[in-house]
Amino acid sequence: MSESIYVGVDLGGTAIKVGICDQEGKLLLTHEGPTEAAKGVEAVIDNIVQYVRDIVEKSPYSWDQLVGVGAGVAGFTNVREGIIIQAPNLGFSDVPMRALLEERLGKPVKIDNDANVAALGEAWSGAGRGLENCVCYTLGTGVGGGVILDGKIYQGSGGMAGEVGHITVVPDLEAIQCGCGKKGCLETVSSATGIIRMAKDAVERGDRTTLSTVEVMNAKEVFDAAKAGDEVALRIVNRAAFYLGKSMAAVAAVLNPEVFIVGGGVAYAGDILFNEVREVFAKFTPEPLQRGVSILPAILGNKAGIVGAAGLHLRS
Amino acid sequence: MSESIYVGVDLGGTAIKVGICDQEGKLLLTHEGPTEAAKGVEAVIDNIVQYVRDIVEKSPYSWDQLVGVGAGVAGFTNVREGIIIQAPNLGFSDVPMRALLEERLGKPVKIDNDANVAALGEAWSGAGRGLENCVCYTLGTGVGGGVILDGKIYQGSGGMAGEVGHITVVPDLEAIQCGCGKKGCLETVSSATGIIRMAKDAVERGDRTTLSTVEVMNAKEVFDAAKAGDEVALRIVNRAAFYLGKSMAAVAAVLNPEVFIVGGGVAYAGDILFNEVREVFAKFTPEPLQRGVSILPAILGNKAGIVGAAGLHLRS
Repeated sequence: MSESIYVGVDLGGTAIKVGICDQEGKLLLTHEGPTEAAKGVEAVIDNIVQYVRDIVEKSPYSWDQLVGVGAGVAGFTNVREGIIIQAPNLGFSDVPMRALLEERLGKPVKIDNDANVAALGEAWSGAGRGLENCVCYTLGTGVGGGVILDGKIYQGSGGMAGEVGHITVVPDLEAIQCGCGKKGCLETVSSATGIIRMAKDAVERGDRTTLSTVEVMNAKEVFDAAKAGDEVALRIVNRAAFYLGKSMAAVAAVLNPEVFIVGGGVAYAGDILFNEVREVFAKFTPEPLQRGVSILPAILGNKAGIVGAAGLHLRS
Repeated sequence: MSESIYVGVDLGGTAIKVGICDQEGKLLLTHEGPTEAAKGVEAVIDNIVQYVRDIVEKSPYSWDQLVGVGAGVAGFTNVREGIIIQAPNLGFSDVPMRALLEERLGKPVKIDNDANVAALGEAWSGAGRGLENCVCYTLGTGVGGGVILDGKIYQGSGGMAGEVGHITVVPDLEAIQCGCGKKGCLETVSSATGIIRMAKDAVERGDRTTLSTVEVMNAKEVFDAAKAGDEVALRIVNRAAFYLGKSMAAVAAVLNPEVFIVGGGVAYAGDILFNEVREVFAKFTPEPLQRGVSILPAILGNKAGIVGAAGLHLRS
């Protein structure tokens, strides 16, 4: 076996997931262990190094076949310098991650934020496999995103590209406060948090809905109610889908990508969400800009981060 | 003089403008002559070849110093194949422009559409000089645009990137029909055509405005009236600026560019337009995405097309 391998590291607040990919982005093996962030930077670095060595050791590949290690981190990163500027989940600030790992591993290391690596994972070897220009949305607690152009992560001038969750989509009079400080961002309506908020508001104001008896809600319950014919739930789902589709129309006019990939918990809603998103996208996008553009669910699930991190050496 | 030169061709419906640029994008010499489109493809090619030979001949540079020729065309182009797919102004369809010119000139030729080359001109050696990531708007009869990433024209998957004029910005109930088939596009409110339409509507419905006596209006008259304190005119200018700034906020969230460059006739309005655009941009853009981002008027005027065309060999 003379092929090259790449290790991806998904550095989370509680667990570190590592995986080996081949040069096509195929995930060959995974492994995980605790982060132990409370013990500090050195302990976390020790753990990453250990897990990376372990996975290569127990694989059919040799250490020499390992070309590089990539890591995705939830937080602000300086990609060029390889520094974690701020990672609230880890309690890290200004940690020279790349240098620390390179010293310990003796291999080239690259880092990027979790939204970008997840986008790269899906674009490289998930729903966007074989396509060059992808814009990815992750609909979770917030709405994250990543822009992949010519097969590579596009960072933007300040490393802030891909913040699709902060496109203003809701008209002023309907807009509510977003965590970013602005009003009417996509994140306020199309994230799980936004969907739950809309459902809670509906219940509280006495809308006629099957959601009314539910105490703690999550977005899945809203989707399930919508599928079962609850009109209030359906209206909420349609609102989330409407603004998502509308934001994609704006992105398509600027970037003319081949595919939009939608991942995160909310994307599990399936057709009830995607059909509406596609319809709204078609409504707001001039025909020549619609041609050849797909809107697809992500397929790698929570493996996208590992795969994308592994891909950083080839695709960033 | 051993330096390299590049010739840019701005192929318009009535005139062909050519210019020599050095490798920094400095425009050294220009020349122009009639297009004679009515005489057909061969005659137009003859003219381009003649003007290119003439300008190099009368310059202090030799033919050997000419590295390549670029041409910008109003219409749909297939950049990869060097074909003009459709150019209504010229009456051209499926003209293999690059091949025809390369055969006659014996130099490498590149072509692109006029919006992209104008954007490249401004980004390379105009308002965006020295910056890597620029999004350009041209506010004329319509609203065109171009996206320059890492110093190069970004085409998108179908060659349709940069259609910023067709971002939907006007809410449904206020939206009017756009030439693209959709409603509420930026072009309907921020183009000269849109501004004139709003002014005519105001006059026709009897709004109290100094514009009322004007028979044939152009956008400049609306800006002049606004500067002179006409409230109706000011409201129109603010509406054009509002949606322009809002569209930029959406673009900034996705691409995080360093600069937005605004050219075309409407941009001559100056501060009355730009101040409002900047304010609206700041209103809708999260603070980290505003950082380091400028909104600037184009500075090359109608020379942007020549300069950008000359730059195609270095920047596409």
